[in-house]
Amino acid sequence: MKKKMNIVIVGLGNIGSYFYNYLRKNKKIIFNKTNTIPNILFVSSRSFVKKRNFPLSKKIWLKDCLLATKNKNVDIIIELIGGAEGTAKKLVFEALKNKKHIITANKALVAKHGDQLSKIAEKNKVNFEFEAAVCGGVPIIRSIKEGLVANNINKISGILNGTSNYILSSMDNDKLEYKDSLSNAKKLGYAESNPASDINGEDVASKLKILTALAFNSFINNKIITVEGIKNIDQIDINNANQLGYKIKLLGVAESRKNKIIQRVHPALIKEKSYIAKVGGVLNAVIVESNPVGKTVLQGEGAGPGPTTSSLISDLCSVLRGNVKFPFVLPYKKRKFGYFENIDNKKFSVYLRLDVKDRHGILSDITKVMATNKVSIKRLIQNPTINKKNASIVIITHEAKSSSFVKVLSTLKKKNYIVNIPKIIRIEKV
Amino acid sequence: MKKKMNIVIVGLGNIGSYFYNYLRKNKKIIFNKTNTIPNILFVSSRSFVKKRNFPLSKKIWLKDCLLATKNKNVDIIIELIGGAEGTAKKLVFEALKNKKHIITANKALVAKHGDQLSKIAEKNKVNFEFEAAVCGGVPIIRSIKEGLVANNINKISGILNGTSNYILSSMDNDKLEYKDSLSNAKKLGYAESNPASDINGEDVASKLKILTALAFNSFINNKIITVEGIKNIDQIDINNANQLGYKIKLLGVAESRKNKIIQRVHPALIKEKSYIAKVGGVLNAVIVESNPVGKTVLQGEGAGPGPTTSSLISDLCSVLRGNVKFPFVLPYKKRKFGYFENIDNKKFSVYLRLDVKDRHGILSDITKVMATNKVSIKRLIQNPTINKKNASIVIITHEAKSSSFVKVLSTLKKKNYIVNIPKIIRIEKV
Repeated sequence: MKKKMNIVIVGLGNIGSYFYNYLRKNKKIIFNKTNTIPNILFVSSRSFVKKRNFPLSKKIWLKDCLLATKNKNVDIIIELIGGAEGTAKKLVFEALKNKKHIITANKALVAKHGDQLSKIAEKNKVNFEFEAAVCGGVPIIRSIKEGLVANNINKISGILNGTSNYILSSMDNDKLEYKDSLSNAKKLGYAESNPASDINGEDVASKLKILTALAFNSFINNKIITVEGIKNIDQIDINNANQLGYKIKLLGVAESRKNKIIQRVHPALIKEKSYIAKVGGVLNAVIVESNPVGKTVLQGEGAGPGPTTSSLISDLCSVLRGNVKFPFVLPYKKRKFGYFENIDNKKFSVYLRLDVKDRHGILSDITKVMATNKVSIKRLIQNPTINKKNASIVIITHEAKSSSFVKVLSTLKKKNYIVNIPKIIRIEKV
Repeated sequence: MKKKMNIVIVGLGNIGSYFYNYLRKNKKIIFNKTNTIPNILFVSSRSFVKKRNFPLSKKIWLKDCLLATKNKNVDIIIELIGGAEGTAKKLVFEALKNKKHIITANKALVAKHGDQLSKIAEKNKVNFEFEAAVCGGVPIIRSIKEGLVANNINKISGILNGTSNYILSSMDNDKLEYKDSLSNAKKLGYAESNPASDINGEDVASKLKILTALAFNSFINNKIITVEGIKNIDQIDINNANQLGYKIKLLGVAESRKNKIIQRVHPALIKEKSYIAKVGGVLNAVIVESNPVGKTVLQGEGAGPGPTTSSLISDLCSVLRGNVKFPFVLPYKKRKFGYFENIDNKKFSVYLRLDVKDRHGILSDITKVMATNKVSIKRLIQNPTINKKNASIVIITHEAKSSSFVKVLSTLKKKNYIVNIPKIIRIEKV
């Protein structure tokens, strides 16, 4: 007799609908690859009567998705509702408690409750899989857990959000201001109508927290993380960066040094010749630096129904093959809290843009403020005046502590010759 | 009681020694990640008395490695001998027949006997793993078999050999001729004393055959494949390519169109702005184009003991976790022969360099030969004369069939105004 596993899909939005149809149409090839039949037992969503451009039989409709967690015929629940709380949370907790395998694309849920969920999954010897929660179709989680399992990771970084990468790329390529680029992204479907979490770095932060836990064998740390978005980047900054041989990218970075882990999400200037500077549009790329393998890069589509389905099916095949694994590489008991540190003592070179009144003595005052705070200047460019009264000064500094820059900025802000809020963007070696 | 699996390592060369020591030192973390103790039962190599810079106890020495295949305590054999025939072949066949899991880094063996070996492994329900055989530490096999398992792959291409990539990169960066670059590569340990298979494309061909079978669910095809190496690339070609906005890379490409698969290994001009043009030195990069995920790129260290050990341990963890998989994604019975086609009808634009005597009427004759064979010219540059008597003509053609270029070349070769063998390099869109 052929082995069969019964699947319930919960959530039939953009992703859910695509996944449901893909699974329906690819049952045979998935059976061939896994030796187990992926049988769609139920689907559940907010409304059955909603107009859909694919057939959906009442026979497989489940009105209350939570019932799936108690149905003894159900083996696997695929959660595509989204959100860290509410139904998604209830469904996933109940499912794992009732020994159902869980596959989810819900990064907010995993970043917030992943530790608890993995504990329950391990206890009940079921899978808790979330490849689709980080970087869409890029198989980064599987690569950390399996392909690179031998390695001692010391840094994981990359472009983890397609929307913000599209906006920054388009500001660069099409010489647009931030607002216009964002509005284009919305028109093209690359940004949601409420793009807040993509733009303010929260989406990257969720993904980074998950990757950090996987990379450093730690629990998820939601507290000690620097998160800055892209909305303060002006066209002039992109332009200045280009002139200096840099591109501006929103990066997520987790690194471990002397057993201290730093998590940070912020825009950064990166050398235009570097590989990651070429990753444009909605693409995602993750760089893993580890021993003994060295530097590994994975690049691909970071969002959208197709790429997300690719990851969901990969998780599904893993479950169908019977490959039970610890959700976060190590068993719950062996994971560490990790010594997380904030960014204050981390040293950076930075790009600093100061729009100032064009009068004597200012440069001397600025350099004095910097010297007082132990920030030394590597390069200084006074750009042509914005208008007759003001000038724009761009400074590339040598490395100094993050906290020193905070002091520099807070002092400069108070100066009456400063006409706009000073812009500071870290420079990252990648 | 803790689960334990007994391992025999065969081959203690550069790779084997590194792997043995890595495994010894990382037993605990591997146990933590897999819940199974990786116990080194025996190691075997040509000579016990050979001087080694690490301790090796006589207690675990196995003189005749083939005995491991019949020892009922042995669970896993790691073959690091190399070569498609001889002891490596005997060992791996015998091991699988005797229900031992096999992990190997031997691309020649897998490319030649992989189909037969996978059949035996499947029948005996043991693993036959060979992540380390293709692109060192880049987890490309695992990604095709797991991370990208949902996808219908239509093209897989990339830089699959670090030695030749180093030589080409160094010809470009350091303005060296091929011979000098090769000699540097040897000095730096990036090329073996006999680098033939790295340079003539055979090494890439072995890897490509394995990837093709994995990507297109076919058996391995050793017969229908175009293989050209890099030894005919001159410094002047690299220089010309640069002037035209290209880089020259040795590519392995397998693509399926209308159910016909073409496998080819050859140097190619690729746009200097493309991602893969930036992959320099000994790095490897693989591009997978597939549905629904789109384009996925994996880049990393392609060779050396560290990266290879990363892949070997990843295979080992898979076995320790009990993750039995079909070695070539699909079961043996479901794999197809595949309709392989040679390169003749494949269309390319090409770069053509003709060193000719500098006299009247030659250009007219060359263009006539090309027109007769339905090759049209996109761009033509007559470079400054090499010496007073000769000129170098560089032509970028429009797309034409491979077979047309063969005819053009065979006609031109006979012309008495041609002073060197004409150089032709395909242009690849990547």
